[in-house]
Amino acid sequence: MVAISHDTVRALEWVDDTLRLLDQRLLPGQEVYVDCNDASSVATAIADMVVRGAPAIGIAAAYGAAFAARDAWRNHAESWQKQMMQGLEELRCSRPTAVNLAWALQRMHKLAMTLPAAADPWPQMLAEAHAVHEEDVAANRRMGRSGAALIHSGSGVLTHCNTGSLATGGLGTALGVIRTAWADGRISRVFADETRPWLQGSRLTAWELAADGIPVDLLVDGAGAALMRSGAVDWVIVGADRIAANGDVANKIGTYSAALCARQHGVRFMVVAPTSTIDMQLADGEQIPIESRGAEEVLAAGGQRVAPVAEGVGAWNPVFDVTPAELVDVIVTEVGVVHGPDAESMARLFE
Amino acid sequence: MVAISHDTVRALEWVDDTLRLLDQRLLPGQEVYVDCNDASSVATAIADMVVRGAPAIGIAAAYGAAFAARDAWRNHAESWQKQMMQGLEELRCSRPTAVNLAWALQRMHKLAMTLPAAADPWPQMLAEAHAVHEEDVAANRRMGRSGAALIHSGSGVLTHCNTGSLATGGLGTALGVIRTAWADGRISRVFADETRPWLQGSRLTAWELAADGIPVDLLVDGAGAALMRSGAVDWVIVGADRIAANGDVANKIGTYSAALCARQHGVRFMVVAPTSTIDMQLADGEQIPIESRGAEEVLAAGGQRVAPVAEGVGAWNPVFDVTPAELVDVIVTEVGVVHGPDAESMARLFE
Repeated sequence: MVAISHDTVRALEWVDDTLRLLDQRLLPGQEVYVDCNDASSVATAIADMVVRGAPAIGIAAAYGAAFAARDAWRNHAESWQKQMMQGLEELRCSRPTAVNLAWALQRMHKLAMTLPAAADPWPQMLAEAHAVHEEDVAANRRMGRSGAALIHSGSGVLTHCNTGSLATGGLGTALGVIRTAWADGRISRVFADETRPWLQGSRLTAWELAADGIPVDLLVDGAGAALMRSGAVDWVIVGADRIAANGDVANKIGTYSAALCARQHGVRFMVVAPTSTIDMQLADGEQIPIESRGAEEVLAAGGQRVAPVAEGVGAWNPVFDVTPAELVDVIVTEVGVVHGPDAESMARLFE
Repeated sequence: MVAISHDTVRALEWVDDTLRLLDQRLLPGQEVYVDCNDASSVATAIADMVVRGAPAIGIAAAYGAAFAARDAWRNHAESWQKQMMQGLEELRCSRPTAVNLAWALQRMHKLAMTLPAAADPWPQMLAEAHAVHEEDVAANRRMGRSGAALIHSGSGVLTHCNTGSLATGGLGTALGVIRTAWADGRISRVFADETRPWLQGSRLTAWELAADGIPVDLLVDGAGAALMRSGAVDWVIVGADRIAANGDVANKIGTYSAALCARQHGVRFMVVAPTSTIDMQLADGEQIPIESRGAEEVLAAGGQRVAPVAEGVGAWNPVFDVTPAELVDVIVTEVGVVHGPDAESMARLFE
């Protein structure tokens, strides 16, 4: 592995009119890039988890929508706004839980509807995708500062999944807070759940933190309660894939367990997410669609089948769980910080 | 994989004056046996986890102690009782948390002290090791019946780690209860945590259950809270490596998290363990020594390194955690069932 600074790790890059994605399925062993030049290849990359992390998925979808408009114009100039819908629909169906995907597509679609029917939409659509991308980078920076300000000097922190440069356009959400607080000298120790089945913690978070020179101790997902009981953790800091209007948080499977354990041990629980992750259309977390993936992800580990291949051996593999708002101490967004989230305080965020 | 009935799966067998251990590091991919003929090779097999599971470790240690006495007699007939202590000490140090190990060694040592100094101790010591082994098989059967009787028809159960034929001399502890309740038609569905880092759930529990024709769904360890919230689980049923005098339970890392989540969701929590697992010398769980193993177990998965090999990337890898007695609804032993364990009710078990 080549050590690289976090300013050079990028999940997505725009190079020569191409969306270049770092293939996260192969990290940290190999750095391979996947080039996407149309909506369909972007949708496939999202579905196959070449790119993952709610904000990064949103950015990729924005570029995918720009491709859809460009190709619709090339093939059906007279009706490109209608023809692009197929590409948008394919992108929308690529993954169900992260609302940033729908948010980005809606934003791109809204712009498309304001564009003249008789002109090539590509320049404006591409500019909008770039704006989505750049705004995420700026949002990361703002959230990093706001979240870090809440952390007292000498704190131990535990994070789950990967919420860094590989999950966003920039510094990251939860990992952006951890990076910023580390740079401020507020953090004594960083722990990361390995985050089965996809091992985003071991494969991605540890890789990013090592590249930044931030020491990290990985633990198996079941060890969080014992770690908190030991007194080593002051904050659990996570990202989100969708936040409902009442502050309920859908995030990587295992987050809800971490939140329950945090509350039992007096450990504070911080969720860091841009407003594009908040779905004010859903009253609560019960309504958030939770993706299930194939059993094989659980039955294998490290690319090896570990469970016996035998009749009756299956798996229960939801990708996300829902943490009720009452277990969340604070939600940090780029427009403000919500303490003790509920329907009222969440609504104020958008005023 | 060859399907085998649980009556033929044996973690330990006595064959031709040899302790034959099924190498659990290689399951379910390969069935390889390791033969032990002296105390030192038994100690190594325990330390390296060829054999694991508190009751199975106790049985293996009993045979190891018999070997130690036999070899001490052969080499130093005049002082075999003193000379055997080195072998016992090596066995005692092979793993720290499961008290069945110390219990078995103490029982064997006690017998040795009553034997004539001037006669070959082998026949009596071997008979005692066989007794330890056979009593565990009988204890499994009794615990299976007592635990199953507590489970209402149509229950969903979740277990952690492996507590079956591979962890004991017979049917198993927690898995013995599940097998018995399944045979009684009381269980609607069996879930098993994969149990990182060693994957005892995926590799061993699923293998045993498949061999018995009991369907099982594996889940990642972080998913337990979401599963319980879904209403699919009525009982969490686990084994133990050591139970303190007040009912605090040391068991595989992740058990404490499962117990916390069970209590939050109104799911009942059952611990199944023979009295050889209970350490009345320790007032509470704080005093139980908790083994930590190497970081590599966490940094790898399925035999592959998954975390980056980089400076600053480490792991926190305690093998066990402690579940406070107040989170335990019932402890099932071969001599009785303790509801709401505390110092008083635990002491009554030994009256």
